[in-house]
Amino acid sequence: MDLKMFIRDIPDFPQKGIIFKDITTLLKNPGAFRAAVDLLTGKYRQRKIDKVVAVESRGFIFGSILAYELKCGLVLARKAGKLPHQTIREEYALEYGTAVLEIHVDGIEKGETVVIVDDLLATGGTALAAAKLVETLGGKVEGIEFLIELGFLRGREKLAGYPVNCAISY
Amino acid sequence: MDLKMFIRDIPDFPQKGIIFKDITTLLKNPGAFRAAVDLLTGKYRQRKIDKVVAVESRGFIFGSILAYELKCGLVLARKAGKLPHQTIREEYALEYGTAVLEIHVDGIEKGETVVIVDDLLATGGTALAAAKLVETLGGKVEGIEFLIELGFLRGREKLAGYPVNCAISY
Repeated sequence: MDLKMFIRDIPDFPQKGIIFKDITTLLKNPGAFRAAVDLLTGKYRQRKIDKVVAVESRGFIFGSILAYELKCGLVLARKAGKLPHQTIREEYALEYGTAVLEIHVDGIEKGETVVIVDDLLATGGTALAAAKLVETLGGKVEGIEFLIELGFLRGREKLAGYPVNCAISY
Repeated sequence: MDLKMFIRDIPDFPQKGIIFKDITTLLKNPGAFRAAVDLLTGKYRQRKIDKVVAVESRGFIFGSILAYELKCGLVLARKAGKLPHQTIREEYALEYGTAVLEIHVDGIEKGETVVIVDDLLATGGTALAAAKLVETLGGKVEGIEFLIELGFLRGREKLAGYPVNCAISY
């Protein structure tokens, strides 16, 4: 199944000059949604994964299914101030300014194997912050999964050293 | 399994006087996470559901699994300005002021059966807005599923007329 057929281009969103890759047209199609999930989960079914870290907020969509399917725990990586318990935080660069990603200190135990999930690999800054958070808590990043990769932004270079997989590449 | 054992109380979050029900302690436990999903999905397995509407952002966690398990489409209900394509919107009251929920105009087809999913039933304002959006597009709300209900806020009264189910009630 060519999953690209189910992604809709939205010109000038969220700002002029950007072509936004809209995944809602994939999500609402049961066959395409299932095929995308299978691409993300397949490679981990025979391995011992302790936790899936899902990155706010579209990362929650595929991260939660991955955790459910692999019968492992789900941990949320969220923007600053959203998680209620004690957190560690990692700052990362945006095009203009910086953003902060947080994770609960009790989300990952030392030595646990972790897969990180987000919907889109752009410059890789968010995923790298998530990986650092996992490692600060003593977890081992077994893989980073994305639904979509914007290859021209070279996010894979920033994530060199981690196994990175993308279901759809542009 | 007593799922309440896996919910953590966080006093004074997000503001003084509120006891926040933290679900991350449930999510990170594979057995409790699975039991919660089974409670939400079980009743729909023998029925024809066309779409699951997941409410931003913690509703994405359980809504996506429900859609995957029922082999139906997933539709996102999001806060104002987050969805890239043409939307309809519904305003609803918060404790102070109002908020807006949006859904893509092509998210639901006329006559489709729909289950709405969110993590928390408080006053019911968000879920009622989601139900109105579904009905404006011609969908039929077959059920509204929550992980947690704060019964003392009487959200069920606001949602009278809809089948409402909550895995955990306080």
